[in-house]
Amino acid sequence: MADVVTFGEAMVRLAPPNFQRLEQARSLDLEIGGAELNTAAGLARLGHPVEWVSRLPNNPLGALITNRVREVGVSDRFVQFADDGRCGLYFLEFGASPRASSILYDRKDSSVSLAQCGMFDWEAIFRGAKWFHVSGITPALSPGAAEVVDEAMHAARDAGVKVCMDLNYRSKLWGCEHAAEVLGILLPQVDALIASEADAEHLFGITGADFAEVAAGLVSRFGVKTVVGTRREAPLVWRNRFAAVGYTDGRTYESAWYEVEIVDRLGAGDALAAGLIHGLLDGDLKKGLDYGAAMGALKHTLPGDLPWLTKDEVEAAMQGQGLRIKR
Amino acid sequence: MADVVTFGEAMVRLAPPNFQRLEQARSLDLEIGGAELNTAAGLARLGHPVEWVSRLPNNPLGALITNRVREVGVSDRFVQFADDGRCGLYFLEFGASPRASSILYDRKDSSVSLAQCGMFDWEAIFRGAKWFHVSGITPALSPGAAEVVDEAMHAARDAGVKVCMDLNYRSKLWGCEHAAEVLGILLPQVDALIASEADAEHLFGITGADFAEVAAGLVSRFGVKTVVGTRREAPLVWRNRFAAVGYTDGRTYESAWYEVEIVDRLGAGDALAAGLIHGLLDGDLKKGLDYGAAMGALKHTLPGDLPWLTKDEVEAAMQGQGLRIKR
Amino acid sequence: MADVVTFGEAMVRLAPPNFQRLEQARSLDLEIGGAELNTAAGLARLGHPVEWVSRLPNNPLGALITNRVREVGVSDRFVQFADDGRCGLYFLEFGASPRASSILYDRKDSSVSLAQCGMFDWEAIFRGAKWFHVSGITPALSPGAAEVVDEAMHAARDAGVKVCMDLNYRSKLWGCEHAAEVLGILLPQVDALIASEADAEHLFGITGADFAEVAAGLVSRFGVKTVVGTRREAPLVWRNRFAAVGYTDGRTYESAWYEVEIVDRLGAGDALAAGLIHGLLDGDLKKGLDYGAAMGALKHTLPGDLPWLTKDEVEAAMQGQGLRIKR
Amino acid sequence: MADVVTFGEAMVRLAPPNFQRLEQARSLDLEIGGAELNTAAGLARLGHPVEWVSRLPNNPLGALITNRVREVGVSDRFVQFADDGRCGLYFLEFGASPRASSILYDRKDSSVSLAQCGMFDWEAIFRGAKWFHVSGITPALSPGAAEVVDEAMHAARDAGVKVCMDLNYRSKLWGCEHAAEVLGILLPQVDALIASEADAEHLFGITGADFAEVAAGLVSRFGVKTVVGTRREAPLVWRNRFAAVGYTDGRTYESAWYEVEIVDRLGAGDALAAGLIHGLLDGDLKKGLDYGAAMGALKHTLPGDLPWLTKDEVEAAMQGQGLRIKR
Amino acid sequence: MADVVTFGEAMVRLAPPNFQRLEQARSLDLEIGGAELNTAAGLARLGHPVEWVSRLPNNPLGALITNRVREVGVSDRFVQFADDGRCGLYFLEFGASPRASSILYDRKDSSVSLAQCGMFDWEAIFRGAKWFHVSGITPALSPGAAEVVDEAMHAARDAGVKVCMDLNYRSKLWGCEHAAEVLGILLPQVDALIASEADAEHLFGITGADFAEVAAGLVSRFGVKTVVGTRREAPLVWRNRFAAVGYTDGRTYESAWYEVEIVDRLGAGDALAAGLIHGLLDGDLKKGLDYGAAMGALKHTLPGDLPWLTKDEVEAAMQGQGLRIKR
Amino acid sequence: MADVVTFGEAMVRLAPPNFQRLEQARSLDLEIGGAELNTAAGLARLGHPVEWVSRLPNNPLGALITNRVREVGVSDRFVQFADDGRCGLYFLEFGASPRASSILYDRKDSSVSLAQCGMFDWEAIFRGAKWFHVSGITPALSPGAAEVVDEAMHAARDAGVKVCMDLNYRSKLWGCEHAAEVLGILLPQVDALIASEADAEHLFGITGADFAEVAAGLVSRFGVKTVVGTRREAPLVWRNRFAAVGYTDGRTYESAWYEVEIVDRLGAGDALAAGLIHGLLDGDLKKGLDYGAAMGALKHTLPGDLPWLTKDEVEAAMQGQGLRIKR
Repeated sequence: MADVVTFGEAMVRLAPPNFQRLEQARSLDLEIGGAELNTAAGLARLGHPVEWVSRLPNNPLGALITNRVREVGVSDRFVQFADDGRCGLYFLEFGASPRASSILYDRKDSSVSLAQCGMFDWEAIFRGAKWFHVSGITPALSPGAAEVVDEAMHAARDAGVKVCMDLNYRSKLWGCEHAAEVLGILLPQVDALIASEADAEHLFGITGADFAEVAAGLVSRFGVKTVVGTRREAPLVWRNRFAAVGYTDGRTYESAWYEVEIVDRLGAGDALAAGLIHGLLDGDLKKGLDYGAAMGALKHTLPGDLPWLTKDEVEAAMQGQGLRIKR
Repeated sequence: MADVVTFGEAMVRLAPPNFQRLEQARSLDLEIGGAELNTAAGLARLGHPVEWVSRLPNNPLGALITNRVREVGVSDRFVQFADDGRCGLYFLEFGASPRASSILYDRKDSSVSLAQCGMFDWEAIFRGAKWFHVSGITPALSPGAAEVVDEAMHAARDAGVKVCMDLNYRSKLWGCEHAAEVLGILLPQVDALIASEADAEHLFGITGADFAEVAAGLVSRFGVKTVVGTRREAPLVWRNRFAAVGYTDGRTYESAWYEVEIVDRLGAGDALAAGLIHGLLDGDLKKGLDYGAAMGALKHTLPGDLPWLTKDEVEAAMQGQGLRIKR
Repeated sequence: MADVVTFGEAMVRLAPPNFQRLEQARSLDLEIGGAELNTAAGLARLGHPVEWVSRLPNNPLGALITNRVREVGVSDRFVQFADDGRCGLYFLEFGASPRASSILYDRKDSSVSLAQCGMFDWEAIFRGAKWFHVSGITPALSPGAAEVVDEAMHAARDAGVKVCMDLNYRSKLWGCEHAAEVLGILLPQVDALIASEADAEHLFGITGADFAEVAAGLVSRFGVKTVVGTRREAPLVWRNRFAAVGYTDGRTYESAWYEVEIVDRLGAGDALAAGLIHGLLDGDLKKGLDYGAAMGALKHTLPGDLPWLTKDEVEAAMQGQGLRIKR
Repeated sequence: MADVVTFGEAMVRLAPPNFQRLEQARSLDLEIGGAELNTAAGLARLGHPVEWVSRLPNNPLGALITNRVREVGVSDRFVQFADDGRCGLYFLEFGASPRASSILYDRKDSSVSLAQCGMFDWEAIFRGAKWFHVSGITPALSPGAAEVVDEAMHAARDAGVKVCMDLNYRSKLWGCEHAAEVLGILLPQVDALIASEADAEHLFGITGADFAEVAAGLVSRFGVKTVVGTRREAPLVWRNRFAAVGYTDGRTYESAWYEVEIVDRLGAGDALAAGLIHGLLDGDLKKGLDYGAAMGALKHTLPGDLPWLTKDEVEAAMQGQGLRIKR
Repeated sequence: MADVVTFGEAMVRLAPPNFQRLEQARSLDLEIGGAELNTAAGLARLGHPVEWVSRLPNNPLGALITNRVREVGVSDRFVQFADDGRCGLYFLEFGASPRASSILYDRKDSSVSLAQCGMFDWEAIFRGAKWFHVSGITPALSPGAAEVVDEAMHAARDAGVKVCMDLNYRSKLWGCEHAAEVLGILLPQVDALIASEADAEHLFGITGADFAEVAAGLVSRFGVKTVVGTRREAPLVWRNRFAAVGYTDGRTYESAWYEVEIVDRLGAGDALAAGLIHGLLDGDLKKGLDYGAAMGALKHTLPGDLPWLTKDEVEAAMQGQGLRIKR
Repeated sequence: MADVVTFGEAMVRLAPPNFQRLEQARSLDLEIGGAELNTAAGLARLGHPVEWVSRLPNNPLGALITNRVREVGVSDRFVQFADDGRCGLYFLEFGASPRASSILYDRKDSSVSLAQCGMFDWEAIFRGAKWFHVSGITPALSPGAAEVVDEAMHAARDAGVKVCMDLNYRSKLWGCEHAAEVLGILLPQVDALIASEADAEHLFGITGADFAEVAAGLVSRFGVKTVVGTRREAPLVWRNRFAAVGYTDGRTYESAWYEVEIVDRLGAGDALAAGLIHGLLDGDLKKGLDYGAAMGALKHTLPGDLPWLTKDEVEAAMQGQGLRIKR
């Protein structure tokens, strides 16, 4: 019986070592990642029982992914192994200023993109859960996947489970109009929404003088209760400043800022989502932002998409403990 | 102006190091391979100008493949970069007795499988060439690819270019009946055919007391002039005995046998095909078998699908030079 | 609710790559292993729910071990994190004839060696289980650990759970007389015993003309129902012949023999134990020996102590399928 | 028929991983590099046909170099394999502030240093070419090499091919006076000269209040048409600011400045030269500086001497696109 | 006959590559380190004959350590191999802001912690020596080790050998009160003391407005002649500013400051101690601070605990030479 | 004061991992080796004080070599650092049947090849020594090196030090006639000679029906007291049978035969020489052959040229201990 349920795709990630370009590579480092899995992992690392729901091909790559899902502490009880579809892959090149990191997706026809309504027993899945989390990537995978997200959100609400969504618009997966239409159907079912100002404008034409105005626009348009955003100052590829900001009931909250040296920025936003949900589970938005910002900041320092952080170090970071080695 | 033209797919090959199972892997070694490319590379290493013709996606993986095609000495002048399709991949686990090595293909919808008649300027491609080589894998990729093979064979014969085909039946790509039908259309255009007795029986119901009888059956059924087979005694995964056998004009020829310690057996048959064509280019079947067996044997000792051997060592092996380090 | 429960230590294993001597090493490959965990993993890979019970230090090495326990499919629900004791380690050098592989243990004062009676809720642990498995290594760790093994065996029998023990005498952990005394107390509670003829003689003075006589001696001395042994012909470090033999109700059974090329022989006996228990769970000794021999043979081909094999390939090996790559 | 011809040495480069000192190394990463080859590669990556002319030993290291020359897209048609001389090597230690990176050359008696006038068929080499590029390193290799450079420059001018030279004074190869004498003979044949103010003063005593004055001095002394320099602010080993500056017809031009995080700074100047020649080929000095600065900046982010950049990212950098990952 | 003798523990250090968390690791990089060994190595790299005295287990790990002690140029003539005790280990995770690097010690019951008075022939060891160096870690290992340090200090003073101590309080090894008591007995025998203001306050309650006041307090309390401290500004994990400060005869001296890019900060303080002793051997405190700061700064750029620097580069750094690659 | 002194070259050895061809390599494993150094290391591993005398360039590669000389336990007290000459290198490709391993030397103009008579203080070097060992490679390096060998042999005999020589003819270094002439001058000063029958015939025309006759011929021609040979049956690259044979005072002795699985056969003969000298130091030829064969056999199992074996395992191998892991 999980506190939190997440639903989405996980991919095998393949990256050349040592800042190599893919064309130069003679070996690739293998990690796994996927927005909702990353968030599930963050919650598991904080001690919550979490279910990650997905659909994977019945082959060694599918097995590899569920193995590591369990390794990081997330339950794979409701993951389905399918005979159709393939395992999504993505290739990652680590950059350095002025070369941005870059991603080549090879995720078409993944097993989860072939998911259909009725495949998952949402009633069983949500039994005892408090939050359901999904990103805007999952409905972008295919019309079928979008319908399953809708189905899941309805089931969640029927079961009294709150819904958190990270908007995460991906232009490589779908066009702006299509995204706006589908997400516009899903958002009214969402309690807590993570969204950037750029996506709010780009998808929905919602603008404002500052985060609060944009958030208020999203609240008013879609009826979400809470809107959360990431603050990032990123003049370089290996250095960032990072914080979280949130809006609820007409008020704005902001976390502390973190100076970040970047080992691997993939999954930082998903780690933030985990901290947010952790805070909302038994606290409030402020607690969620504080945990979220610390977890997002710490994720930058860990290789791979998964947030292999510890609860102790999250809380130490929140208390501003220094960078000395303890001995 | 190439002596030999080959046509087919090349894939990125990803293999865990150190006999790991894919599920255990945290990194994958990256090589490239494809039956006809491997053969082209073998011919290039013997000093022949060779064209490898294919279709690749216009992305870093496609670029990676053509880079390495040139690296090994094969021309990529007629390789096309496409906006449709993806880069074929395959995952390889190295085994040890009693665990066979195993392969997971992820090659569906590759750019070359989307090839269509008319895409390639075969007249220009074959100008000055003497042999065209293709394997039975290429027509298995898709109906379109099969038609392009047929188109290419006709163009080859029109240009006075002889055709060599390695039957290479792949049960993961197509069924037996379908293969027999398509290959049955192609084979009458073939001069030199590489085929196993198992495939001859499985696909065409041609059987015999020994290789010569099966070869005679293939000659009589399809009108091919020459049939070549691999001899392999393989009681273990890391040890083989290896030789080549051929049949033409009613006579059978056999190469010397080689004791083989196996680093990587992928591409050994393709290296044999290269030696065969080298022999046929300015010699005869016996020369082709001698080079083919030596090259196939040596290929087992080289990591990757490509036969990074040297002409000197091929000829030294043919002369039975020993295994001492020269100093 | 697990089919099988195992209890024992798992260690972090550190081995230099590429047959290096430890003195030469600049990096070490990290795996985990432990006799009973290895057996649990083998059962999990065949599809059985399995509990591995142990005690680990509350630090990153303890976490690392439980992560990988879950990764391989074994439940860590009853593993305890302790503030006393350390994580057992062992250093492994891979050999080549005439240099045997060698092991340097650094496992003293491990958390599990500090275990005491009453620490584990055996009633809950054994609920629904059918077999309990432990090796002779666990009682060798400390007097406390030996008492906990005795406690567990009693609890198992009280719960109607059968007991399997792999004798596994380790001269680096305890002397012969001490071992004989402690094991002599435990063995009468055992249903299925895995033991070598050498250990039977060395510890208990039980000898015989062949395996059957020795097994009969063990049955008569300790009342065990079944005795199983490994057959191994090992003229070299990289090559073995391997089989399993068993004795029950006065009859002897033997599995097929396997030709084995050795990647990593650690854990082969533990994989055999998994196959044995799998056979005994719903079959008989013959089935257990067949699975056990195939699993033990396959384990030699997989790096690490854990048997990352698949049920399909175990059964293919039992049916004598060949070593060709499937494509 | 190449747009650009370059002539010089390429070496095998061996570098310990992970900022190790050479004394610590147990393995070395292998790349190839050489000033003129690096520039040729930069031009090839922009889409130009390029010839790199050189002389290499007829052994596996020579073969390795030509393989990778072709891999990066440069033609090796005019590279000669020699029975005399060896393959130049250099050992590289990556530093960190306050430890500078350092290089140990082992390039004496390389095959190209044994080159003599008459060995190369410059008429054939320059057929259809528009620019010839050489650095001041090549004439420093030996008196014979210096004469071949002179021979090549004359042949270039006879063929209507413009000459670009990167002064690149290397104190480890020759003394200041000797360099000044030899370069003084070559420079009057040069159209575009890349030179630092330090070298201008050190070798020729040409000084000035700023780059423009020094460039004017070089123009007036040697009759070169264009002078280009690198601007670099480098307070640390892992961070730079980088730009290009140029002078022609009495006017000074400057590129944008780039913030650079440094993976590998070797070959940055050579990448700048490639961008410069690209600009001069069909544009003007300003275009050359813009491409040159972007390519030089991007090269810092790529491991190895060769500029594995893409035309798209060069132009994106020139347009000031940000560092976000595109997805 | 060594200039300097040091006494203490060396451990095998195991660190995951690439900023991985220990839980993620599949391999560990192996280095050796120990405060007094690091200092001995720094002195050896400057050309001094040095003895490192210790006690190691008689197994491959003990042999590994002495091998590398000799490799770095330190004599192991007085290292004893023991049948009791184990080899100390420590596990290191490299961090990035805001995640501090972290250390997991596994050094309990090391052979040197079992040392007893009378085991070492200090008279022979100190013959001809000028300085004895020990850190506050050694007496923290065990009461026996503390007594041996006391014994050694007395022997040193009897032999006219000066004593340098680096206070280095380690809270994971002993409590504050216990440390203060033991160190309070040792310090009156010390000539040169390296101590942080934090430790002075924490252990001895000595405070002051600045370093000079604290140093004066230590001088007055314990009669040491010289006190040295490290200045470090460390806003990030990968960047520091670093300098040394010292106090003697009522005057304060400070070295130049260094901008440091950090590859591995372990052992920087020990390298500083080496530079300090080098300066005191034939110079004065100012010389010691200058060498110490340069060596400490350079050590940050070298992987491993040992200061693999060269005398030339230390002196170049002291003269403010830049970061350009020499060629 | 060493028991044994050896004199010769050591090189940095660079080998691609994983049976790669040099042309395929992206990294090279770095070891050091040289015939006389290897033998010195074997003696040091048995517990003898040994001096290795040589001449190395005063650069990081020279430092690297002496570091590792000390690491393996050999004294570098009489190694000279020179400003002339370079560090010898060799590139090694590991083979597999039917591809022999192969070596590319790049050792011309090494510092030791520039050695001259008078450079070494042989009187000091030989003080207290009992044996001097040199191979036939050292005089092949240059006429100067040959003279220094002659000088050293005279000094050895003057000091009552016995001389052991391993003939080791290297056709890549010198021609047969030249070798015969130079070695013919040196051999009369040799007490114990290691030589193959092939070299005896090839260089000196000495033939015989078996080893004894050839040895008798060498004894009679050159007055050496003892002749030793290696017996090797090597049908494959990864498997050998290995033994030693010797002749003295008219009698022939043979060691046991060893089945060898080959990790790295370089240096096996040099390890045999170490065992031989160990036996001769305080035993007789039979003891020398027994140790020599065991050490030679074991060396095949250790990566690198240096025999990182232990005295315990040498003696265990001599006693025919099996291949089981001790636990």
